[in-house]
Amino acid sequence: MRIGLVGTGTVGGGVIEILEAKATAYREKLGVNLELACICARTEEEVAPFKAKGYTTSTDAMSMIADPSIQVLVELAGGYEMPRQWITAALESGKHVVTANKAMLAKYGHELFPLAEKKGCHILFEAAVGGGIPIIRSIQEGFVGSEVEHLSCIINGTCNYILSRMTEAHLSFEDALKEAQAKGYAEANPTFDIEGVDSAHKTALLASLCSGKYVDFEKIHVTGVSHISAEDIENAKELNATIKLLGLYIRSEAGVDARVHPCLVPNNHLLANVNNVINAVYLQCDNLGPTLQTGAGAGRLPTASAVVADLVSLARSTDSGKRLPMPMGWFNKENAATLVPIEETSARYYLRFTTRDACGVLASITGIFSENRISIESIIQKGVTDPGKVSIVVVSERTEERKILSALKAIDALAAVAEKSQMIRFLK
Amino acid sequence: MRIGLVGTGTVGGGVIEILEAKATAYREKLGVNLELACICARTEEEVAPFKAKGYTTSTDAMSMIADPSIQVLVELAGGYEMPRQWITAALESGKHVVTANKAMLAKYGHELFPLAEKKGCHILFEAAVGGGIPIIRSIQEGFVGSEVEHLSCIINGTCNYILSRMTEAHLSFEDALKEAQAKGYAEANPTFDIEGVDSAHKTALLASLCSGKYVDFEKIHVTGVSHISAEDIENAKELNATIKLLGLYIRSEAGVDARVHPCLVPNNHLLANVNNVINAVYLQCDNLGPTLQTGAGAGRLPTASAVVADLVSLARSTDSGKRLPMPMGWFNKENAATLVPIEETSARYYLRFTTRDACGVLASITGIFSENRISIESIIQKGVTDPGKVSIVVVSERTEERKILSALKAIDALAAVAEKSQMIRFLK
Repeated sequence: MRIGLVGTGTVGGGVIEILEAKATAYREKLGVNLELACICARTEEEVAPFKAKGYTTSTDAMSMIADPSIQVLVELAGGYEMPRQWITAALESGKHVVTANKAMLAKYGHELFPLAEKKGCHILFEAAVGGGIPIIRSIQEGFVGSEVEHLSCIINGTCNYILSRMTEAHLSFEDALKEAQAKGYAEANPTFDIEGVDSAHKTALLASLCSGKYVDFEKIHVTGVSHISAEDIENAKELNATIKLLGLYIRSEAGVDARVHPCLVPNNHLLANVNNVINAVYLQCDNLGPTLQTGAGAGRLPTASAVVADLVSLARSTDSGKRLPMPMGWFNKENAATLVPIEETSARYYLRFTTRDACGVLASITGIFSENRISIESIIQKGVTDPGKVSIVVVSERTEERKILSALKAIDALAAVAEKSQMIRFLK
Repeated sequence: MRIGLVGTGTVGGGVIEILEAKATAYREKLGVNLELACICARTEEEVAPFKAKGYTTSTDAMSMIADPSIQVLVELAGGYEMPRQWITAALESGKHVVTANKAMLAKYGHELFPLAEKKGCHILFEAAVGGGIPIIRSIQEGFVGSEVEHLSCIINGTCNYILSRMTEAHLSFEDALKEAQAKGYAEANPTFDIEGVDSAHKTALLASLCSGKYVDFEKIHVTGVSHISAEDIENAKELNATIKLLGLYIRSEAGVDARVHPCLVPNNHLLANVNNVINAVYLQCDNLGPTLQTGAGAGRLPTASAVVADLVSLARSTDSGKRLPMPMGWFNKENAATLVPIEETSARYYLRFTTRDACGVLASITGIFSENRISIESIIQKGVTDPGKVSIVVVSERTEERKILSALKAIDALAAVAEKSQMIRFLK
């Protein structure tokens, strides 16, 4: 199988490295032939080391894609518009596609997947979600005998690292972020990760695969982790829970409930112990019961390894005739999921109020809970943090989010409340 | 794809149930056609309910297999000799095979896999190991860009249930076994499970897939769990560890190190928290890093769901031309792995000695350790359990097993030692 690769950065370089090491073994042991026919990057400088090794190289992805001898496009350049054009051109000319670009798939998958189905081509994207965890393959193939009822996942290594360090080392959010940046686990501009956008891209793809409906990442509720304080982390510990940023999919009568937000995960749940940059996907299926997969979520070789696994799968079909591509034509705007609005979801809630040390404030707060018909599971009144301030933590019983939002609005309007109140959902 | 199914028991019945519920969705959504062309069991009585529903049924598997219109044999009858004959006949006539029969594959896979490769047929066996965990697919396809360096797995629900209950509820082995039997998690004759034979079948299959060499289950070291005492479980807790029956594969210069035995798993290791009948496979790969997959290890619908997933995979290739079967011809006796003898492995060891309360016995024991050049990491001398007996727990530093075996032999020969000494390896 003749491969055209675009992008020689971290992951692209890793793919070349693995193919150099393993192509012979794949030929001999699996009978598949993975040939790097052309390596393409933006500049001559970037492709020079590969040219020096004897590879055919290019700085013009479109010409490479126009070469009829290329059978599969591996897109590892990143970005949105160029990959969209390359992949469209590749599919139009009957080429298969392997990509790790979750952002682009979340944004343009609704165009590309139907085009692929129309052209009888595969788009494989195992590396786009969960790096080294074979979760796409598991949902598309391994769990096909079962219906996914619930999925919760830790799929952003940056956020998981920050929250883990806040939990283990009692760091503030800011210090944990600085540490993550120093270790290369967070970008200089970390917004995309810490505000949950990356998790939303991946959650939208997973929720689409689980539901068989197109889930638009721009329409799902997203809350990041930058508002989580050291105090919340310590309070979670007292409540026997660990705060994690989760992507969630819940099959519901009302439609697709997909969202990204921090959760208090009970410490006896397997996800509570998935720490640092490790990713995890927890699934509850009707026939299969609960399953968990954990592994490296990012990094050069784990991600490259997932790309290479897709190439081997592709070669196993294309080198020996034809395998029915996984139909993904349903991933289109006409088949968009009806999303459950966040106000209509329900959970147990962790609520933290910072009040002036005034008599009667606890009575006001519990009164507002009562007016909104929210049952309280427990209340912890903490010692004064800042002089003149009291921290009150309330855990609600399971209730609807709109009741909580209404209560929070009323509570934040109280004169005795000193800061915007904190709200974090429990996973269970 | 026309399916001939043998075996209408727990799993077979589950497969029929899932296909009845999902065949239409598979046709409409995945474009694959799964048709139960014939259902076969030993007696007319067993097939009667299916006949009544309008299925073609048979009590003669060989005649069913001789039907040229049947394209795939699903073998869910269990046993050794009959399935071996059926599968051989099916492969000889160019039929693909899906089976959940790990015992038969461990015993006769070295005949059947090469025959399948010769005939260009698939043998799919996702349901044979880890029930609902798609571990075969993960190793064969998802992790193909990586080399497995270490695998440790909990793959026998009976043993994991017993050990979990001993740990959580302080039960004796005998009481935990009785409870497992009462709940249907253990057979009336539990030997096959508790002595580790079932784990050895599965470990041999996994070690074969990881190494690309045939691993004979009869040649791997197997220790079961019946010798684990409540005292060992409590001592493990003090050592911050949990005792689990593990199947192990370690890639080694000396060959394939594959074995089944209880291990003290450190409590911060993900496997330590996999409890009750849940199965788990932990893998350490060169490019991918560590991954863990957990899920239901057995049960009607989880196992049936894995069989159905194999059928969908098969139909995706056979309904649309041909997909290169995963080459398994290497699974033969000529390509047998060189196994690392257990004496040549190394570990940290938990050793428990029951001694008569005699002066000097600790000195004798530590003297023997010293003679065998075994370094001691810690010693716990426990209060008297039975009158006149003392329990001494020694944790060794990492050392070779032959040194430990030599020391144990010498220690068990001491007059002051009242019972055969206990030895359990640490995972790390």
